[in-house]
Amino acid sequence: MASNKPTIPQGTRDFGPAEMVRRNYIFDTIRDTFKLYGYQPLETPAMENLSTLLGKYGEEGDKLLFRILNSGDFMSKVPDEARAKGDTNAVSSHISERGLKYDLTVPFARYVVQNQGTLTFPFKRYQIQPVWRADRPQKGRYREFYQCDVDVIGSNSLLNEVELLQIISHVFGRLNLDVVIKINNRKILAGIAETIGFPDKMTDITVAIDKLDKIGNEKVNEELSQRGLSQHAIDLLQPVLKMTGTNAEKMNFLAGFLQNSETGKKGIQELKDIFDLTTMLQLKTTLELDLTLARGLNYYTGAIIEVKTLEMEMGSICGGGRYDDLTGIFGLKGVSGVGVSFGADRIYDVLLHTNKFPNTIEQTTKVLFTNFGSAEASYALHWVYALRAAHIACELYPDSIKLGKQMTYADKKGIPYVALVGENEMQKQTVTLKNMASGEQREYTLPELLDFFKG
Amino acid sequence: MASNKPTIPQGTRDFGPAEMVRRNYIFDTIRDTFKLYGYQPLETPAMENLSTLLGKYGEEGDKLLFRILNSGDFMSKVPDEARAKGDTNAVSSHISERGLKYDLTVPFARYVVQNQGTLTFPFKRYQIQPVWRADRPQKGRYREFYQCDVDVIGSNSLLNEVELLQIISHVFGRLNLDVVIKINNRKILAGIAETIGFPDKMTDITVAIDKLDKIGNEKVNEELSQRGLSQHAIDLLQPVLKMTGTNAEKMNFLAGFLQNSETGKKGIQELKDIFDLTTMLQLKTTLELDLTLARGLNYYTGAIIEVKTLEMEMGSICGGGRYDDLTGIFGLKGVSGVGVSFGADRIYDVLLHTNKFPNTIEQTTKVLFTNFGSAEASYALHWVYALRAAHIACELYPDSIKLGKQMTYADKKGIPYVALVGENEMQKQTVTLKNMASGEQREYTLPELLDFFKG
Repeated sequence: MASNKPTIPQGTRDFGPAEMVRRNYIFDTIRDTFKLYGYQPLETPAMENLSTLLGKYGEEGDKLLFRILNSGDFMSKVPDEARAKGDTNAVSSHISERGLKYDLTVPFARYVVQNQGTLTFPFKRYQIQPVWRADRPQKGRYREFYQCDVDVIGSNSLLNEVELLQIISHVFGRLNLDVVIKINNRKILAGIAETIGFPDKMTDITVAIDKLDKIGNEKVNEELSQRGLSQHAIDLLQPVLKMTGTNAEKMNFLAGFLQNSETGKKGIQELKDIFDLTTMLQLKTTLELDLTLARGLNYYTGAIIEVKTLEMEMGSICGGGRYDDLTGIFGLKGVSGVGVSFGADRIYDVLLHTNKFPNTIEQTTKVLFTNFGSAEASYALHWVYALRAAHIACELYPDSIKLGKQMTYADKKGIPYVALVGENEMQKQTVTLKNMASGEQREYTLPELLDFFKG
Repeated sequence: MASNKPTIPQGTRDFGPAEMVRRNYIFDTIRDTFKLYGYQPLETPAMENLSTLLGKYGEEGDKLLFRILNSGDFMSKVPDEARAKGDTNAVSSHISERGLKYDLTVPFARYVVQNQGTLTFPFKRYQIQPVWRADRPQKGRYREFYQCDVDVIGSNSLLNEVELLQIISHVFGRLNLDVVIKINNRKILAGIAETIGFPDKMTDITVAIDKLDKIGNEKVNEELSQRGLSQHAIDLLQPVLKMTGTNAEKMNFLAGFLQNSETGKKGIQELKDIFDLTTMLQLKTTLELDLTLARGLNYYTGAIIEVKTLEMEMGSICGGGRYDDLTGIFGLKGVSGVGVSFGADRIYDVLLHTNKFPNTIEQTTKVLFTNFGSAEASYALHWVYALRAAHIACELYPDSIKLGKQMTYADKKGIPYVALVGENEMQKQTVTLKNMASGEQREYTLPELLDFFKG
């Protein structure tokens, strides 16, 4: 057995008590909101068959999958030819049949297809679990991280989009974070591309629009030209690039611009319905039409959603959209869904940076009983028993050591009160309660102490 | 993209909504109890370096580790010689440096050693996470399953053992399961082996005692002989094999039997202190001295604990013990700890089999609002908004489809009430609430409905 100081794999993290209570605060807030809106929990295994995962995340994604070695004498299953060749490509598929899940979406689709006969549609599910990616570790990017997904599948209604916007507003409201929700619609982007005569250049156009702020109008036009757009198309696009104003003004402009595109008009109508409903509901969070949202253009088919915090410089902390054919990859056609995913790690960083974690979440144990010897400990055991029966978290220090050390323990663990138990207290059937912040001390009987902590 | 019906890896499971609410009931009960006793949460990554895991679970354990393939061109790192040989043993260590964790104990030890400078000792931590073992899948044995561990490390006090027994009693009391806690002490077993003159045969003796019920006294004696015990030693052991009675009677007998073994006497004293303290505390669960407990004899050094349910035939549903040198495997000596682990899967099976899951946990959404069209849906949106603001879980059916289908949705999802919203209700600013169980209907205004669900 090695006695070298052990290490943790690169890109992974331990979450000690301090981090855990903060993370749980985020997860609990998100989970509780999901439940309030009628979403039900799902968990899928860490590992999936590689046949489920491969080809779903593009070539780059395939490379980032963590593959699990087959058990037993795995090399004996490698055909002679591949073994002789001995390179990674030749050998890989013979020695590994499973991988760690890369996201929650593909396992969710797999689950829906496998259980389509028994599920209740529309199926509203949430899933809060870790995923794994063999990314190069760097600041803020981890190889194991949690995703918090909420999706409804099997309903085309825009009320689902509206509900997800409410959920976003609800979660960040409860977390006390100032955010703006940016929204786009893939059909509008398709309509624009169609209108200027380059329906197959939708992604190029969106990517170029996204750079407007950074590189300016002229350079964007140059780039569009390099990407194969005609001068005529670029000229036609200019009003879109120059579009400003309120959501209503933008919608107004786009309604005119897209009047000859059926797809574009459909996108406008979808977005208008969403704006109308959220206005009627007085959604507390600002909703902003943003044509540059190009997230997941290869699978989103309607709404595209992204949430930015206004508290600090930070990438998107939540995002998602409408996908019309999630389960198609597993042979189940025509099931439309819409969902968003909350980025717990980024939300954690924002709350920490802005000092917005409530102070109360740090405390777990309310009071530590000191241990001055076995008689005192036996006496205290009855008290901790009574407090726990009243659902008050408390501890008895297990060893009879110097009081100073016991106080340090309470202090380091953030325990707000210490109950001192000596001969005097035992005789009077009391404890002396010390407030660790103020230093104040007072004697309590057991009923008084119960009242004090329950009050 | 394959359109074959997808599958899930052998030995792993999806947990759909019905299983999840039941599992969460178990986890929440356990977690809440851990917190009440002042234990703090820890989570470690799914993967650990193989150097951390290998050699910690015996040869058999090493084989059951799920190993993760190195990323990138892993075969290029295999030395020519190993590549030429091409067998599993030669190649394995060159292509895999990480594995999935096999239990929570070794990663906990690794964490403690890595963070010894900043942790507050005694360190009381709980950890509820999945672990992975490449076991052959069979009924009740899975390749991915949760462990619920609670340990205190850095304190020799027997008050910790007593606290863990209280936690066990507390958890199973709240789960309404009738259990018996069996307790043993490795020092007593060592003392017995010492007393009969075969100190190195402790495990053999314990294993033989364990078979007493099944194969009878005579066959046990034969086996002991085969395992190398002299006839004299076997004769000396007979009173131990025939020992019966209450805990006090057994303790009394053992005190005499072990009078010449320092280790044995220490074990008796430890056990006596635990019995005395739990008696004083009127522990609600039966505590039973059982010399056949041979769990983890290679690392437990004091108390050995196992919990059996009295509700049905089932292996141990919780177990643990005192270990004096957990962190020694990573070079940190002299840190004693004690802990137990709850078997969530088995507890689940017992609760399901005995019909002891509370009915209330199944319901998540309290009321479904029907959707008869966009005007009715808009009206209902205000109601669901108000209910959610009052923290009442509810849903609006997203699509305007036949009422029967919407009712079926509520029924299948176990939603107890449906709020019917038609023209009549909109005019009167009410909803008609239907009790799905009784079929009863009544009209409510919004304040009345809020009262109804909050009351």
